[in-house]
Amino acid sequence: MTARTVFFLSDGTGITAEAFGNAILAQFDIAVRRVRLPFVDTPDKAHQALRQINHVCETEGQRPLVFSTLVDREVLEVIRTGCHGMLMDTFATFVQPLEQELGVKSLHRVGRFADVSQSREYHDRIEAINFSLAHDDGQSDRDLQSADVILVGVSRSGKTPTSLYLAMQHGLKAANYPLIPEDFERRQLPPALLAWRHKLFGLSINPQRLAEIRSERRPGSRYASLENCRMEVSEAEAMMRRSGIRWLSTTTKSIEEIATTILQELHPQRLGY
Amino acid sequence: MTARTVFFLSDGTGITAEAFGNAILAQFDIAVRRVRLPFVDTPDKAHQALRQINHVCETEGQRPLVFSTLVDREVLEVIRTGCHGMLMDTFATFVQPLEQELGVKSLHRVGRFADVSQSREYHDRIEAINFSLAHDDGQSDRDLQSADVILVGVSRSGKTPTSLYLAMQHGLKAANYPLIPEDFERRQLPPALLAWRHKLFGLSINPQRLAEIRSERRPGSRYASLENCRMEVSEAEAMMRRSGIRWLSTTTKSIEEIATTILQELHPQRLGY
Repeated sequence: MTARTVFFLSDGTGITAEAFGNAILAQFDIAVRRVRLPFVDTPDKAHQALRQINHVCETEGQRPLVFSTLVDREVLEVIRTGCHGMLMDTFATFVQPLEQELGVKSLHRVGRFADVSQSREYHDRIEAINFSLAHDDGQSDRDLQSADVILVGVSRSGKTPTSLYLAMQHGLKAANYPLIPEDFERRQLPPALLAWRHKLFGLSINPQRLAEIRSERRPGSRYASLENCRMEVSEAEAMMRRSGIRWLSTTTKSIEEIATTILQELHPQRLGY
Repeated sequence: MTARTVFFLSDGTGITAEAFGNAILAQFDIAVRRVRLPFVDTPDKAHQALRQINHVCETEGQRPLVFSTLVDREVLEVIRTGCHGMLMDTFATFVQPLEQELGVKSLHRVGRFADVSQSREYHDRIEAINFSLAHDDGQSDRDLQSADVILVGVSRSGKTPTSLYLAMQHGLKAANYPLIPEDFERRQLPPALLAWRHKLFGLSINPQRLAEIRSERRPGSRYASLENCRMEVSEAEAMMRRSGIRWLSTTTKSIEEIATTILQELHPQRLGY
């Protein structure tokens, strides 16, 4: 059985079509070949997209799957009329019932990023990314009062990717600060953080997993040894408990899962919800 | 008219429910209050979520909207039976027709990030983030041969957020390199990049917009002056044309739009599609 071709069709970036389509496809144990068709925002481009979709249908002898988030009426009409693939018109399915429920007509407007350079939300998001970069790995103590979240944990517990994700996806200013042997000897959180305890969130990790991750970088080092990883993790967790800060284990979690949990627990004020 | 409450309900992170719901809501000119309900993966948690949803229905006197990507059958049953909100069961709508089309049953498995620490794809994504951080702003010339993409452009043209996004969302090793007055005098791309022309992608920007962005950081500086921004942009664009590298203007584009365009143009090899 050849892989099924899947198109993600959108008048914008197609990111929503792709995320949604992939989540649905994860429910099926089948091989797929993915093709992005973004920025299909004119009838001309719709006809081009149709040719590509229908060509696959002919040459592969099975209908490609087409996840669409098209909103432009004219473009949608071209696709609906001529598409030989299995069209999953994800928006249309819900827009009409919502028009009824809300008692207003939908705008049929493309994408949510139009005039992005004028948007406050977008501006804040870029600021958050810059902040998180400048405050990665305890690089700077400056301006921690404007941080929304400060992640703490031992080296390679997942702080950097999580901070960047929180900034990129949620516009949060997320600093991160390593817990190091000096802190363990002093038996206290890094002094710069003591004033911001309510914004702290700890990341911990299984020592075996940590040793694996560190060994990729510095094989055979004391830093990566299981013994040292056990000690650091145990000291770090003891410190988080003593300090009463919330924390979680990242061992089997994705960045997305870690970030979602932090948002649930910390309810950062700047977040819209 | 009070804002309509919208729930994003999922047995995983809810990121797909949220992205999908927000994209649909962008089609309506209404005020909304958003509530995330992630990790609803047991009937008990489903009953808790129901109480929260139905409470809003009572106190606000209008049905909340509920975007769900639930896949667990038991959880879904609890919600379907008891939900007083307007339930948009986004997966169910497409899973059944897909089962018919594909001739296989769906797995009803939660999330796509299970056992993430064991996944090669996830490992590569974290590696890509580390690479992009280490190669931000021309910090390192080392290992550029393993870069998937190298962005070039004047300071504040959008290179850093775009590189991090490409790494975070697409697992691409995205380096970025500033074009500076020295390069303009030499009338050549930075020497370290000459061997990697096929991976280069240029970002440019409208000089007025650039002056605004730079002025936020260094108001009144020569760096931020319109005159200097005009000169740098004009030199950079001339250099990109001479070098025959692809480029775009980021002025009115979001990170997502820039990244999608780069993927379309460059077709990086490591990308699955």
